[in-house]
Amino acid sequence: MCDTCGCSGDAVVHHEGHTHTVPLEQDLLAKNDHLAGHNRARLREQDVFALNLMSSPGAGKTTLLERTIRDLGGELPFAVVEGDQETLLDADRIKQTGAPVVQVNTGAGCHLDAAMLDRALVALAPPSGAVLVVENVGNLVCPALFDLGEAARAVILSVTEGPGKPLKYPHMFASADLVLLNKVDLLSYVDFDVAEFRHDLSHVRPDALVLEISATRGDGLGPWYDWLRRRPGRG
Amino acid sequence: MCDTCGCSGDAVVHHEGHTHTVPLEQDLLAKNDHLAGHNRARLREQDVFALNLMSSPGAGKTTLLERTIRDLGGELPFAVVEGDQETLLDADRIKQTGAPVVQVNTGAGCHLDAAMLDRALVALAPPSGAVLVVENVGNLVCPALFDLGEAARAVILSVTEGPGKPLKYPHMFASADLVLLNKVDLLSYVDFDVAEFRHDLSHVRPDALVLEISATRGDGLGPWYDWLRRRPGRG
Repeated sequence: MCDTCGCSGDAVVHHEGHTHTVPLEQDLLAKNDHLAGHNRARLREQDVFALNLMSSPGAGKTTLLERTIRDLGGELPFAVVEGDQETLLDADRIKQTGAPVVQVNTGAGCHLDAAMLDRALVALAPPSGAVLVVENVGNLVCPALFDLGEAARAVILSVTEGPGKPLKYPHMFASADLVLLNKVDLLSYVDFDVAEFRHDLSHVRPDALVLEISATRGDGLGPWYDWLRRRPGRG
Repeated sequence: MCDTCGCSGDAVVHHEGHTHTVPLEQDLLAKNDHLAGHNRARLREQDVFALNLMSSPGAGKTTLLERTIRDLGGELPFAVVEGDQETLLDADRIKQTGAPVVQVNTGAGCHLDAAMLDRALVALAPPSGAVLVVENVGNLVCPALFDLGEAARAVILSVTEGPGKPLKYPHMFASADLVLLNKVDLLSYVDFDVAEFRHDLSHVRPDALVLEISATRGDGLGPWYDWLRRRPGRG
């Protein structure tokens, strides 16, 4: 157990009935950045576009991913890494879409790190040209600090989470290339001002692309699919 | 910066225009537990009932607290500690209710700890007989591991966060004395099965009390207020 937020010493990777243990290191952030660099180089070499998908619990990451793979899977070869403290629930949902998927369980841990992705990639072996979506642990805080070696970061915020989030959780939003504002089908039932949200976001990440979507009803998914087709790299 | 999830070395406490810095220690969990014991003893001695209120971002902690203080503040003397990475937004909202409040900003940190509460209590000085509500950083993972010295823990889950959360985030729900299922006014617009939620919760915390509420519309607040009047201690 680490001394800070109780990340367990080991993370467990589940894949096709096998279980692998990923030991965690001390001096995590520095080692993580180093390993993330290796992941990034390998993913580029293999022409795999890796997207780190982050949000609070329940913002709609898995639902968006299910629909995206069903709509776009014939055109883009998706592969998925699912991160959760426990359960195979999300991997089971993704498996139903036909996309290859690996579940990483972090135990008491609060985020995925580059070592976990490294090991998951060995199990998953995404083909050249794949779009690899890494669904991080539902947490609007800690995952922001851990580079996985991804090409881009997308943050989902649901309108049901209410106002002020970019200001209250600036590290997450400052690291986002794309912000997906989800559950816009519920806008008329909740206290959420889209213009105010965009204004708040502009303080911490002026150049993030914002797309307003409903993963359940289908609003705004065309621009999201176009973004995936472009496979925008960072920097 | 700690090596795990990047808690900043210092947390900053804002109170009545003053700013205090709370230095963080190494070997945090052990030291935290020790200091939490001191907090608990002091709070008991002062007859202050401390509630650690936790949830994902946007589940409705502050909204519930505003309404609770407005409805019950004439009967119970409330005092509040607000935890957020940045901003004074929540403390400003609580201030409008007339209750004394201290805001703790954790910077890159993902949770409140016992040292932060200790320092916040010095600034807040809740009167004997007070109900002290500590609104933790919005995070369904890390705050579960840090005892603050509270008498009880309440976890809010909003129905808009969807199914499976007690199983996917077991540490948080396993530590809850009370689970408040919020935003039940939105049940007919989202995919959420209350019976399934109660079943999932029973796997990780069979004896937690569950109350179904709507902090905005007012559903189910009577039993919550009765629970606060009872000031139930732990163990």
